[in-house]
Amino acid sequence: MEESRPLDVAQQLTSTGDMDPEDLRRYGHQIVDWIADYLKNSRQYPVLSQITPGSIRLALPAKPPEQPEPMEQILADFEQTLMPGLTHWNVPGFMAYFAITSSGPGILGEMLSSALNVNAMLWRTSPAATELEQVALDWLRQMLGLPKPLFGVINDTASTGVLYALAAAREAIPDLAIRQKGMAGRPELPRLRCYTSEQAHSSVEKAIITLGIGQEGLRKIPTDSEFRMDVAALERAIEEDLAAGWRPFAVVPTIGTTSTTSIDPVPAVADICERYGLWLHVDASYAGSAAVNPDLHWILAGCERADSLIVNPHKWLFVPIDCSVLYTRKPDVVKAAFSLIPEYLRNAESQGDEVPNLMDYGNALGRRFRSLKLWMVLRYFGQEGLAARIREHLRLAQLVVKWVKETPGFELLAPTPFSTVCFRVHPQGLDDEAKLDALNERVMNRVNEAGHFFLSHTKLHDKYTIRIAIGNLHTNEQDIRALWAELQNYAQSELKVITSA
Amino acid sequence: MEESRPLDVAQQLTSTGDMDPEDLRRYGHQIVDWIADYLKNSRQYPVLSQITPGSIRLALPAKPPEQPEPMEQILADFEQTLMPGLTHWNVPGFMAYFAITSSGPGILGEMLSSALNVNAMLWRTSPAATELEQVALDWLRQMLGLPKPLFGVINDTASTGVLYALAAAREAIPDLAIRQKGMAGRPELPRLRCYTSEQAHSSVEKAIITLGIGQEGLRKIPTDSEFRMDVAALERAIEEDLAAGWRPFAVVPTIGTTSTTSIDPVPAVADICERYGLWLHVDASYAGSAAVNPDLHWILAGCERADSLIVNPHKWLFVPIDCSVLYTRKPDVVKAAFSLIPEYLRNAESQGDEVPNLMDYGNALGRRFRSLKLWMVLRYFGQEGLAARIREHLRLAQLVVKWVKETPGFELLAPTPFSTVCFRVHPQGLDDEAKLDALNERVMNRVNEAGHFFLSHTKLHDKYTIRIAIGNLHTNEQDIRALWAELQNYAQSELKVITSA
Repeated sequence: MEESRPLDVAQQLTSTGDMDPEDLRRYGHQIVDWIADYLKNSRQYPVLSQITPGSIRLALPAKPPEQPEPMEQILADFEQTLMPGLTHWNVPGFMAYFAITSSGPGILGEMLSSALNVNAMLWRTSPAATELEQVALDWLRQMLGLPKPLFGVINDTASTGVLYALAAAREAIPDLAIRQKGMAGRPELPRLRCYTSEQAHSSVEKAIITLGIGQEGLRKIPTDSEFRMDVAALERAIEEDLAAGWRPFAVVPTIGTTSTTSIDPVPAVADICERYGLWLHVDASYAGSAAVNPDLHWILAGCERADSLIVNPHKWLFVPIDCSVLYTRKPDVVKAAFSLIPEYLRNAESQGDEVPNLMDYGNALGRRFRSLKLWMVLRYFGQEGLAARIREHLRLAQLVVKWVKETPGFELLAPTPFSTVCFRVHPQGLDDEAKLDALNERVMNRVNEAGHFFLSHTKLHDKYTIRIAIGNLHTNEQDIRALWAELQNYAQSELKVITSA
Repeated sequence: MEESRPLDVAQQLTSTGDMDPEDLRRYGHQIVDWIADYLKNSRQYPVLSQITPGSIRLALPAKPPEQPEPMEQILADFEQTLMPGLTHWNVPGFMAYFAITSSGPGILGEMLSSALNVNAMLWRTSPAATELEQVALDWLRQMLGLPKPLFGVINDTASTGVLYALAAAREAIPDLAIRQKGMAGRPELPRLRCYTSEQAHSSVEKAIITLGIGQEGLRKIPTDSEFRMDVAALERAIEEDLAAGWRPFAVVPTIGTTSTTSIDPVPAVADICERYGLWLHVDASYAGSAAVNPDLHWILAGCERADSLIVNPHKWLFVPIDCSVLYTRKPDVVKAAFSLIPEYLRNAESQGDEVPNLMDYGNALGRRFRSLKLWMVLRYFGQEGLAARIREHLRLAQLVVKWVKETPGFELLAPTPFSTVCFRVHPQGLDDEAKLDALNERVMNRVNEAGHFFLSHTKLHDKYTIRIAIGNLHTNEQDIRALWAELQNYAQSELKVITSA
């Protein structure tokens, strides 16, 4: 399409408007074809980018473009310069952290949202976006088997959601007037404490820091042999803190912890929260989505008693990032923590309670039309289709578990309640922990360098642990078998390096 | 495409994978055509949705879909059920709040980002996304005429950015150890105070609430006759507070306030910040982008001394929401406020300083590939193309100013440094302020109900003020002339209603 260039630029130089819709149509078709081909052939890309730090930066001009540039050239540079520097997340070989999927219906939804560019801050600034958000989140609630009423809003990430939830928890503490008076320089205030487990996601601690409660205001409760919060230890900690003059205010158990996907005993934690008057926030960011499979409704046991709960459809429900759902049974408290309506945002509907203005339920004012992609994904797959996909990921994970258990020289390091397998290479006779750590790190790096798969690690009981996180819709049994073959292969070759060192 | 339905659903029922890439191609092409037609014919839609609260919710099924549904049906429902409930932001008649644009190159960028679905939390999780973010933000810095070094990160909204900036400001207070110990229950801490103007955006106050500093910890400085922060009053307030034992820690002036787009005197505020050791955060969310026009570099005077600065390319630089840039001269302080690296996110590059891991500069861990759309917009229009568009919006606003000044019965209520005009209908002989407020509210509502335009209001010196915010790339002189004709028309007809009442 070389001939289009001068035209393109000439139009830009004389127009003060947008790209001509016919040009947008032409490039849009070109990009749709590129996307379809990319997803079709995604096994050809090295999953983890192998470039050296700084090389993309150096390959791009240091000075900004003065004149308009032809879209053909921009797309060519995207392909030639940027693509080699991308780590590919939406491919079958991505099994690091938690594998996610931008599914077809999700991509289509994002296309529409980006063209509409609506901001769902107030009901009136896009009634359909506000009401669809409420409807889609009520559908998801039903799919997860949770009782109503449950108010939901979509945020960008679970880090944002837990920040809002714990801000609400802080607001719910009676008589402290923190919203108005703040916390500093008030000798009458007690020190505040929130509780989570040693295995909780770092976002809980970040939220506590941001809220001004401080790292010492988060107490990390030990976990049992299966990495679940020790509820007796939680209760002891609360009693100790009360005796020492702390004010406990919230507990954050996790359903599907980041390292091992463990399930904290939420019902028992809920008992304690009720007894001591604490806000119960459940972090089900990763695993919550699995409950769309009715066989797994049990994983959310106790969540019907939670004050707030996070489930991320962008994690394991095939919705493109970002789409993190914060549910709460106390929307009034969340609103009390955040609502602030300046004159320029007042309108007839902002006075009453007939419709929500979703900006009232968090710190961010602007809100993308994220419910559209969620709605399209829920409908396109349907609950049964979504459940079938979750079941398939569970099946693939159990295959890996079986292989790890059956194969000498491999060792499972945690239970596998969902689709993430934690294991290590552990050759018979090699029991030096430092050497085992080094061996496993080398094996994982070899896999990552080979380019077919991307794995990440954690540490469990101080042991270097390799994780296989299955969750991308394109991953199939052949991929898992190929990964397992690679792991066995590198385990052998790297063992030689380690033992000869 | 009726015949595709059974095939579509049948495939969903047997597959455990994603939508077939060929289906994605087909629907993708269909949606691209829809988008091009939508933007071409966007004048046909009522800008402000006229539906009644709850009607979208009622039109959608209360129960979630059990079975997969055909994409044709989903797209038909989008068009028939959702479209009438949308307020249209990406159209020429949108002049409420601040008008924004999702431009052609921005839409194309979002399409690619949504398919790639990369998360730029760590350098390694997408080197190209991290490095492109640095390069594109350095280009933007140069376009704005700001000196280096200036570290930039993209957030979803300015509300998030100011939260991070003020968290860094809090972290920068020496010896208080708030990150570790928090603020509650520490009698040794002083009460903290941040300063902004009475005209500042509500997000400053929300951030102060979220950070646990409390509404009383934000002092709103009066403004002069042109709605600019009164610097002498600022200094008096700081002196008063110091004498009363408060600890001042930050000042937030605005370049382009929300109501009137006024420009606070940043150089004078910077002097005060230096004298008293306060963090200077400049909110240039709306107007900062205008400085891509070199004639307007002066608006950012003083920003070279700011500790942090926000400019929103999703506001007036034609990038789809969300894309808000937080610049800082003190990235180490922002990092000190937020960085927290759990084991499962450690890797070779997270140890050193060779490349940034952008998750370290805020509360949110997950980060969409937002730099791609920004890079595509900057290149497609080029600095000269962007500047020409800003100049055109300024020209259109000055046309409106001229009409308001020349036309009896209209009154300008604030200066117009950018492209937002604040005025009211003020018929000769009608000086009852309550009646004038009622008249102007009625006139604005009539415009909004007619559907060609969407305007919003503010209050200035307690007077109901209509705002015309020009900023969408599709808005042209004809639109402005048509809007002016409507305003004159409704001013006359509503005056009759008011005076006969």
